[in-house]
Amino acid sequence: MAEKVEPGPLLSKIADPHALRSFSLTELEQLCLELRKFLIDHVSIYGGHFASNLGSVEMTVAIHYVFDTPHDLLIWDVGHQAYGHKILTGRREKFHTNRKYGGLSGFPSRGEGPYDPFGVGHSSTSISAALGMAIANDHQRLRDKKHDKKHIAVIGDGAMTGGMAFEALNHAGWEADKHNLLVVLNDNGMSIDPNVGALKEYLTKMTLSPTYNKIRDEVWNLMGRLKNVGKNAQEIAGQLEHSLKGFLSSRSNFFESLNIRYYGPVDGHNVEQLIKYLKALKDLPGPKILHCFTVKGKGYPQAEASQTTWHAPGLFDKMTGKVHSSQTSSEPGPLKYQEVFGHSLLELARKNDKIMGITPAMPSGSSMNIMMAELPDRVFDVGIAEQHAVTFSAGMVTQGLIPFCHIYSTFMQRGYDQLIHDVCVQNLPVNFVLDRGGLVGEDGATHHGAYDLAFMRCLPHLIIASPLNEEELRNFLYTMQLSRSQRPFSIRYPRGKGTTPKWKTPMKKIPIGKGRCLREGEKIAILSIGHIGNIALEVLDELAAENIFPALYDMRFVKPLDEDLLHKICGSFEQIISLEDGCLMGGFGSAILEFLAQHEYFLPVRRLGIPDQIIKQGKPEELHKLCGYDKGSIQKVLRAQWKRSPKRVLPRSR
Amino acid sequence: MAEKVEPGPLLSKIADPHALRSFSLTELEQLCLELRKFLIDHVSIYGGHFASNLGSVEMTVAIHYVFDTPHDLLIWDVGHQAYGHKILTGRREKFHTNRKYGGLSGFPSRGEGPYDPFGVGHSSTSISAALGMAIANDHQRLRDKKHDKKHIAVIGDGAMTGGMAFEALNHAGWEADKHNLLVVLNDNGMSIDPNVGALKEYLTKMTLSPTYNKIRDEVWNLMGRLKNVGKNAQEIAGQLEHSLKGFLSSRSNFFESLNIRYYGPVDGHNVEQLIKYLKALKDLPGPKILHCFTVKGKGYPQAEASQTTWHAPGLFDKMTGKVHSSQTSSEPGPLKYQEVFGHSLLELARKNDKIMGITPAMPSGSSMNIMMAELPDRVFDVGIAEQHAVTFSAGMVTQGLIPFCHIYSTFMQRGYDQLIHDVCVQNLPVNFVLDRGGLVGEDGATHHGAYDLAFMRCLPHLIIASPLNEEELRNFLYTMQLSRSQRPFSIRYPRGKGTTPKWKTPMKKIPIGKGRCLREGEKIAILSIGHIGNIALEVLDELAAENIFPALYDMRFVKPLDEDLLHKICGSFEQIISLEDGCLMGGFGSAILEFLAQHEYFLPVRRLGIPDQIIKQGKPEELHKLCGYDKGSIQKVLRAQWKRSPKRVLPRSR
Repeated sequence: MAEKVEPGPLLSKIADPHALRSFSLTELEQLCLELRKFLIDHVSIYGGHFASNLGSVEMTVAIHYVFDTPHDLLIWDVGHQAYGHKILTGRREKFHTNRKYGGLSGFPSRGEGPYDPFGVGHSSTSISAALGMAIANDHQRLRDKKHDKKHIAVIGDGAMTGGMAFEALNHAGWEADKHNLLVVLNDNGMSIDPNVGALKEYLTKMTLSPTYNKIRDEVWNLMGRLKNVGKNAQEIAGQLEHSLKGFLSSRSNFFESLNIRYYGPVDGHNVEQLIKYLKALKDLPGPKILHCFTVKGKGYPQAEASQTTWHAPGLFDKMTGKVHSSQTSSEPGPLKYQEVFGHSLLELARKNDKIMGITPAMPSGSSMNIMMAELPDRVFDVGIAEQHAVTFSAGMVTQGLIPFCHIYSTFMQRGYDQLIHDVCVQNLPVNFVLDRGGLVGEDGATHHGAYDLAFMRCLPHLIIASPLNEEELRNFLYTMQLSRSQRPFSIRYPRGKGTTPKWKTPMKKIPIGKGRCLREGEKIAILSIGHIGNIALEVLDELAAENIFPALYDMRFVKPLDEDLLHKICGSFEQIISLEDGCLMGGFGSAILEFLAQHEYFLPVRRLGIPDQIIKQGKPEELHKLCGYDKGSIQKVLRAQWKRSPKRVLPRSR
Repeated sequence: MAEKVEPGPLLSKIADPHALRSFSLTELEQLCLELRKFLIDHVSIYGGHFASNLGSVEMTVAIHYVFDTPHDLLIWDVGHQAYGHKILTGRREKFHTNRKYGGLSGFPSRGEGPYDPFGVGHSSTSISAALGMAIANDHQRLRDKKHDKKHIAVIGDGAMTGGMAFEALNHAGWEADKHNLLVVLNDNGMSIDPNVGALKEYLTKMTLSPTYNKIRDEVWNLMGRLKNVGKNAQEIAGQLEHSLKGFLSSRSNFFESLNIRYYGPVDGHNVEQLIKYLKALKDLPGPKILHCFTVKGKGYPQAEASQTTWHAPGLFDKMTGKVHSSQTSSEPGPLKYQEVFGHSLLELARKNDKIMGITPAMPSGSSMNIMMAELPDRVFDVGIAEQHAVTFSAGMVTQGLIPFCHIYSTFMQRGYDQLIHDVCVQNLPVNFVLDRGGLVGEDGATHHGAYDLAFMRCLPHLIIASPLNEEELRNFLYTMQLSRSQRPFSIRYPRGKGTTPKWKTPMKKIPIGKGRCLREGEKIAILSIGHIGNIALEVLDELAAENIFPALYDMRFVKPLDEDLLHKICGSFEQIISLEDGCLMGGFGSAILEFLAQHEYFLPVRRLGIPDQIIKQGKPEELHKLCGYDKGSIQKVLRAQWKRSPKRVLPRSR
């Protein structure tokens, strides 16, 4: 097991933030150093999110110093900037369990106590939640004066590109007199990849120019001076003042347009300055924003220089900055599905000029950066903006292009209406690549790709498929880019590695809606979808030694189902087991049930997949076991079912 | 049948927009008058959206005059402002079929020809789609110079509050050099109800003050004059100019912050001015916005005075402005479910201080305006912002309040990630009221509440229910506001009327997850969910005369299912028929199949509901028939199934 990480002398005293409120400025600065060192030590041996957490150290200390947490409510948008917060709020000793099965969540989580008043994970939610709390506080103060909480949402410039954040600002500015809400903009110019969008450029300009408030004061001073210069100047100055009022009033800045008072920009690594600003803003009623510029990876030179790599680098040698390879043998292992996708998409795009790539802020996570490097004009990083990504792709497809819109399964939830309304209702042939389908592991409850098969299956026109392995992934990508005038097409694959180093297979067309038999067998037919079928393959290889021979079918498509194959299966087997890395309610297994009901086949169907509960973090294998579809569980089910010899009931004529 | 509406002399010549491009200004103005008259005549006898369409007449004529549609691509956000567009683009003769079964869609629709390059219905999508098209055009111009299209998105100030529009602006401003995109902001200060939000206030200020561009020019002129006044003034002017640059550059306006060039505001009812601006902007590359202020209901005084009522007033007498009541007899009929909800929520809120109402821009559509009138501080119209509405409610609930978040089923699709990530993952007891569940009728494909049961059913923790009638609705609302520390709760009801004028029943608690028997019977058990069960009741009353006696169960809950009741049913009946006003794939009927599979009951299950296809507009009864669950279809199914006497297969021990 990894060594224990020792906190510095000041950090070791902090059982909760009350302790640091009596610190001197020098001590607070020292605490920041210790916290940063603790983070570096920690992530280097236990892994996790890194660069964002280094960037928020001073902000974390300053906020807990100025505000009365947990009475005051602090919400960290996305939350991978909140390790420092967790360490200062009573979770230092448990921090080695971070992101581990049964341990702390990698994100703020309500289950971990009052310092996390709202769980996060996806971006752009914090202002909405904080505004809800602030207005609740205001309502309750009418009856009880003790409701005097302050509300702080810390949000990154990346998260600010999500439309939801804008919706919340628009509402917060409108309800201005009703609440005490401070938005702290943690502006590091980055999402996981460099942030994009017009707002980012705007923020950069503001950060580089003298402070906004300073200019405004300056202008008014100069106007005053002009009036003393002479009569002509005075007259012109009068007219000028009149004209300028519209501009220099409270509405001449992006945020002030929305009636959010703007302060800053301020150096987010200067504790003294942060404290000064936070104190000044603390009791000011109404919505306001404090614009802090920070450096992602601050204090660890390698991370500052290469911020995307160091977003969540894995384990590393903290002295040299060398990231430990997860490769254990000297043999080259399989690539990640993500990489196979990235290379294959480029391969196709080279030959087909109509192919375009769209990613909502995940060029490196998706490996679309591979195509981006060679064909920069044909990949669009649209920011953390899944809604826009989907409809933007739909717009492209109406003009004859072939967009591949890559979205993590869990983030597709945010483009759901656009998928229905702009894509499926219009039957437009957009291609979706859903990444991180199934249980994702350490990111936990907020990030599992658990629901996509269920929430997509109910949509007309949509083709839904999932590749068993790299070869199939390439064949699917090839098939998706073939010309078709209708039917959107979505594939999904899990986070992580495929099955073979020899992934670069020749590409072949897959017939739509056709499954295939992977193993002939008897009595029991296992119907699997996607990569999880490989586990079933392994299980069958082992059970053969026990003379247990179920058949295995890789159905490939959740929709349309291969009905010919299903009729054949229902006519030849006594039992069916469905297997999917997705939720059981309404998922792939339910599609099989619907088929059976429609055709009145009365076979026992055992469905394996994610049960109807929220699954926390852990290694995928641990979680599969928890859910009953790891290797051991599948084996157990097969052994038990093999012994049964149920009478089959054949379909009856109606 | 209603009389035919005759077009005026100029309008009658317009087979398509090419004809009006040779008109003089006077003729264009005359055409506007004729178009407006045609709209008034038409909607008064055929119904449909009214006030928005009156407000966009001049804009429609001016855009088609200046731009080369359909070569240039014009997208109307939401689309209930596009009747004029439809009438001018070859659909005048067919316009009496608008919103009718088999007729024209009430919204732009790709199926209706090249003048509708993108279908709409939900708000805030137009900029994304237009940007996708514009970038596709740019990409294709590299190979073929003919790709010189212009792209115009006409979007209302209400739609601009949707986060998706912001995401698109942020991207458009970033890709500024790559496309020709004009956003026409149709600013009438309204959604269906008066628009809300800080941006709306900002736009109003801009409209009321002298034009933005004019001020900017004025300031620079005055600065120039100052320099000639004398040495002192010159020096100060120099400093002033320096300071002002940051403000008066291209970034001192909300839109220009996002690198979208801003023009206007301009009177959206002045054709001459509109043409002048549109011509000037047409060939300007990059993204730009033309801010037009308009009057919703323009030209029909009653509609101008009462814009919400006249959004879609139903049929009316065009001379007097008297709206025809849809009540046909003198007996008071049942209220709409919407009204029962509105009155009942207020009734509960009066007694329970913790109840709050949240609506995304639908205070009148939801009838939450009833509570708003009496308790204005406890209802929040957050704008067209479903994402924010959900998480804002979640924030409130963490502070002990009891929010009722009312969202149309079809718009819940837009808050789906927030429902999962902020509500269900955290198991927060937010109350959702899903309105317009099931087929909504004339609004058609984009607005049917078809998918909610399927996309919600897969989410852990969520309670999903649907009332049979008004009494049940009241009981559900009562039950939802009882204190509970976890489990979000969602109910859904259809658009339109309930079953009885005597809706004001005493409120009772409904036990969670308990269904009930409505009619005892034999052989066949019908399991229904929600209002559609009333149709089954009627059918059973009639079939009794034929000695056909199926049982009917109102399951009340889609989740959790009443498993005790289901065991009883499965033990006593030979067949099951499930009935829902929702999609079959993954819906309520599939929940029944999952139960049967889990417990190995082998009964035939026939599922009635919306099949796996996009359903267009029509009267609900017409659509139910199309989908096979109107009265006649249910009767037919029951008669046929009654004759069958299948052997039941009892559950086997494992």
